[in-house]
Amino acid sequence: MRTQVAIIGAGPSGLLLGQILAKNGIDNIILERQTGEYVLGRIRAGVLESVTVDGLERAGVTDNLKKHGLVHDGCELVFNGKRHRIDFKELVNRNVVVYGQTEVTRDLMEARAALGATTIYEASDVKLHDVNTGHPYVTYTKNGQEQRLDCDFIAGCDGFHGVSRPTIPADILKEYERVYPFGWLGLMSDTPPVAEELIYAKHERGFVLCSQRSKTRSRYYLQVPLTDKIEDWSDERFWDELKARLYPEAAANLVTGPSLEKSIAPLRSFVTEPMRYGKLFLAGDAAHIVPPTGAKGLNLAASDVLYLSDALIEYYQQNSEAGIDTYSERCLKRIWGAERFSWYMTKMLHTFEDLDDWDRKMQETEFNLLLNSEYGAKLLAENYVGLPY
Amino acid sequence: MRTQVAIIGAGPSGLLLGQILAKNGIDNIILERQTGEYVLGRIRAGVLESVTVDGLERAGVTDNLKKHGLVHDGCELVFNGKRHRIDFKELVNRNVVVYGQTEVTRDLMEARAALGATTIYEASDVKLHDVNTGHPYVTYTKNGQEQRLDCDFIAGCDGFHGVSRPTIPADILKEYERVYPFGWLGLMSDTPPVAEELIYAKHERGFVLCSQRSKTRSRYYLQVPLTDKIEDWSDERFWDELKARLYPEAAANLVTGPSLEKSIAPLRSFVTEPMRYGKLFLAGDAAHIVPPTGAKGLNLAASDVLYLSDALIEYYQQNSEAGIDTYSERCLKRIWGAERFSWYMTKMLHTFEDLDDWDRKMQETEFNLLLNSEYGAKLLAENYVGLPY
Repeated sequence: MRTQVAIIGAGPSGLLLGQILAKNGIDNIILERQTGEYVLGRIRAGVLESVTVDGLERAGVTDNLKKHGLVHDGCELVFNGKRHRIDFKELVNRNVVVYGQTEVTRDLMEARAALGATTIYEASDVKLHDVNTGHPYVTYTKNGQEQRLDCDFIAGCDGFHGVSRPTIPADILKEYERVYPFGWLGLMSDTPPVAEELIYAKHERGFVLCSQRSKTRSRYYLQVPLTDKIEDWSDERFWDELKARLYPEAAANLVTGPSLEKSIAPLRSFVTEPMRYGKLFLAGDAAHIVPPTGAKGLNLAASDVLYLSDALIEYYQQNSEAGIDTYSERCLKRIWGAERFSWYMTKMLHTFEDLDDWDRKMQETEFNLLLNSEYGAKLLAENYVGLPY
Repeated sequence: MRTQVAIIGAGPSGLLLGQILAKNGIDNIILERQTGEYVLGRIRAGVLESVTVDGLERAGVTDNLKKHGLVHDGCELVFNGKRHRIDFKELVNRNVVVYGQTEVTRDLMEARAALGATTIYEASDVKLHDVNTGHPYVTYTKNGQEQRLDCDFIAGCDGFHGVSRPTIPADILKEYERVYPFGWLGLMSDTPPVAEELIYAKHERGFVLCSQRSKTRSRYYLQVPLTDKIEDWSDERFWDELKARLYPEAAANLVTGPSLEKSIAPLRSFVTEPMRYGKLFLAGDAAHIVPPTGAKGLNLAASDVLYLSDALIEYYQQNSEAGIDTYSERCLKRIWGAERFSWYMTKMLHTFEDLDDWDRKMQETEFNLLLNSEYGAKLLAENYVGLPY
């Protein structure tokens, strides 16, 4: 079997890339280890930057987004009870769209099916070969048969635990990592959100995020110790703890209900450089992870995909390798900016046990800067709505 | 002996306060442990915010400042060879004035002498008494005789090591501190400055500041280990190391010469709260220390003095204690902002031995934010020229 671009992973990065390439006449095949249902079952972020919306436009999959996405012009930040609204529209004249990653993925899957492009699910034992030569290929097992897929390029969109990154020799890769001493316990419920906009709240008991997927579906998160298990958290305990960490008006507004999903995720900052090795390109979580504070994960994946699709279109349509050669550098500039922002938001809004009095004061002073300086607030807003593409 | 306000310390804070009070008909006496020559011999900062210039205006001592002060519309920041000019004028439409603390002190001393106000030098064994009653007083020894000075208020302008702060009971004071793992080796010389504006440069070998006092007098600083002794640093070694840390164009421009003064100072962040206890007010270094990166020490002292003189004038002229009661809170808001800025500048521009790869990347990304974001650059400029008073 042969294609122009072999895409590893049918998450939003791989699907978005496949769609934009196909729309531009570039043949591609997606290989995915799991089933489509499994991929759709992963609950992830739901705040889209305009760059991501632009990407979905280019893929031609914004019908549902335009119908159901909620435009948010601001969010609320809270520090030990002190509330401050960040007004994106007023500060930087932009906004974000709240629309779940699950929905983005479903829209992209449906669009891909409509195009008749190939996605091979349950492709196990995927291996990348000869990626640093002119003839890369991928092998995998499907229904017990080993298969071979020849291609011009391979896009590694297979996430942090995927096979693409480890295919690059260790002496080529430079990895940067920071692990945080806590996790996020997330709960999804079919209850109206506690507030129209998102609330990011630091409380002495720990951080809270009140997020949402629609006007009837809420997504809440609690900072919890990494040692906590999901069995430790009954729905009742979750709601009680959430109320205890919210300011009184929000706690009074909170509508509780049974959880649709509940899970604990660790927080990590991770970047690998470079993102290209020969004919292999890493995109999204395969190359970098952000802690979820600031909702940058999906958005960074989308901007990687935009740079990569531009580069490949340029290669096939204009016979130029300029975009390919600068792919890693262009991605990383935006990635490091978003990594800094996610790290800053995480540090400012979580409760860290090992801080001394000085550190705590600096943490509070960082927050106060948002109230006291127009530029401080604009800097946060500019990063939240998304760095320039 | 009796006065309205007893001022402890004849550094720039005490002298500026005394001058503004005297100009407003409030009697004051300054007690100073050292001689006037000793006070003038202390080499300190030389970058004045407009708030500080305003304070000197109110004290009526800006003749020399206007004649000899150098208006700077920007400064240069350098990170491992990457240069970026911060244009204060363009970014926030303000500037700073380069004029040495020694000169400020001398101008204030001369103005005080011209007014005929009393400064008692070589007052040893100063003790503050009954500061939390309606009848505070100060005792001290002069020429072997114990003296007593009765007053309405005491202003503690006697620096970090002075007697004023320890007079406040330990259970009232809350102290915040951060000590940095390096010092600054400073050298003053009668040589033309290497550049028209200040250069703050981070280099792998350590931080450098190229500062100046006038068009013919330079002040340079090198980050050095705290274990270094001044004897370790001949002038020749200093100049060689400075050249090694500067970018080539600056190194080529550097004019060297014999040192007038050379000293090593540790870097510290320190704040004490509250700044008022009964009739005692702390101002300047007695209450807070900043690391010198960003030149905030003298400027914070000046804003404390402005808040305090406003409060005392209000008390005597309008019989209102409102300013006195809010003194600590008003000062501290500005102080914490400047502490954050000095801490941020120190962290961004110094070489820290214990940083891992992630930390180093974040340090560089903080610097890149100045290049990549107008708001990032404006936030720095706004803080450098001075937070609102």
